[in-house]
Amino acid sequence: MRHVISVLVENEVGVLARVAGLFSARGFNIESLTVAPMPTVASFQAEEGMKNVSGCSRITLVTHGDDGIIEQIIKQLNKLIPVTRVVDVTDGSHVEREMMLVKLNAEREVRNEALRIAEIFRAHVVDVGPTSLIIEITGKGEKLNACLTALAPYRIVDVVRTGQVAMLREPEKV
Amino acid sequence: MRHVISVLVENEVGVLARVAGLFSARGFNIESLTVAPMPTVASFQAEEGMKNVSGCSRITLVTHGDDGIIEQIIKQLNKLIPVTRVVDVTDGSHVEREMMLVKLNAEREVRNEALRIAEIFRAHVVDVGPTSLIIEITGKGEKLNACLTALAPYRIVDVVRTGQVAMLREPEKV
Repeated sequence: MRHVISVLVENEVGVLARVAGLFSARGFNIESLTVAPMPTVASFQAEEGMKNVSGCSRITLVTHGDDGIIEQIIKQLNKLIPVTRVVDVTDGSHVEREMMLVKLNAEREVRNEALRIAEIFRAHVVDVGPTSLIIEITGKGEKLNACLTALAPYRIVDVVRTGQVAMLREPEKV
Repeated sequence: MRHVISVLVENEVGVLARVAGLFSARGFNIESLTVAPMPTVASFQAEEGMKNVSGCSRITLVTHGDDGIIEQIIKQLNKLIPVTRVVDVTDGSHVEREMMLVKLNAEREVRNEALRIAEIFRAHVVDVGPTSLIIEITGKGEKLNACLTALAPYRIVDVVRTGQVAMLREPEKV
């Protein structure tokens, strides 16, 4: 089964290698992973809503595997010292989103056609050059795939995806 | 100096742990990292533009460090068997983007105010519940920080960021 796991970790050198190592040691492939620092905007750190997470980063990873083994991995993750919290987001009602940049080698004649398709997928142009343009699109993985298929005739020369991030729907705290 | 490095790797178990390990072995912190599979949409794999990258994933990572040591790490990365290509995107003209989800615990009375601010930052509402809403925003890191600051009065209860992805401006191929 597919699992989306959110891990809050302290910013220590090597923590990402250790988290990734836990999965590879069991032969589990990580389909996608994102890690970024939690914001340290003082103004809202002090707000009652959010706990102090400065000096922390959040890892969101997607993996496929037997539920029992995933449960074991989550237990192991919880034992790692720099790990503050682990949530299997797939257990609850949640929102999943991903961002993708696509570079098209669109000559002037077909550019408008390509832009119309981008518009249908609510994509935005973030850069344009003499023979290329870069569009940005967000959504679920399937939407991004559908957009790529629709854009295929316009010479896709590069694609980069962020991997999924996810958030529980309930008003839960970090 | 800040470096954004794009690494194309074959999908093998453990490759992420090895790439992350190269950085931690030198005491380098990875500020943000994303890894996601390259698309395998047959229709454009066959196009002349893009090389066959099925079975590959792309890692985009941001780190800070002495240029000489970064250069050494890039050389080491190139030596890893599952690594197909390494580009220091910061060397060239490039586009950098990130996505963020923010959950606000906005009661009905202040919800409209929060939504107006979201609108100014071209953010989109992706979920709404009785007492909370989740908005999605994309852009450079500084823009996302500014948005967080502006939203601080509306009780931010959760934030997740994807970390940067980047793409060279020139019509380069993968």
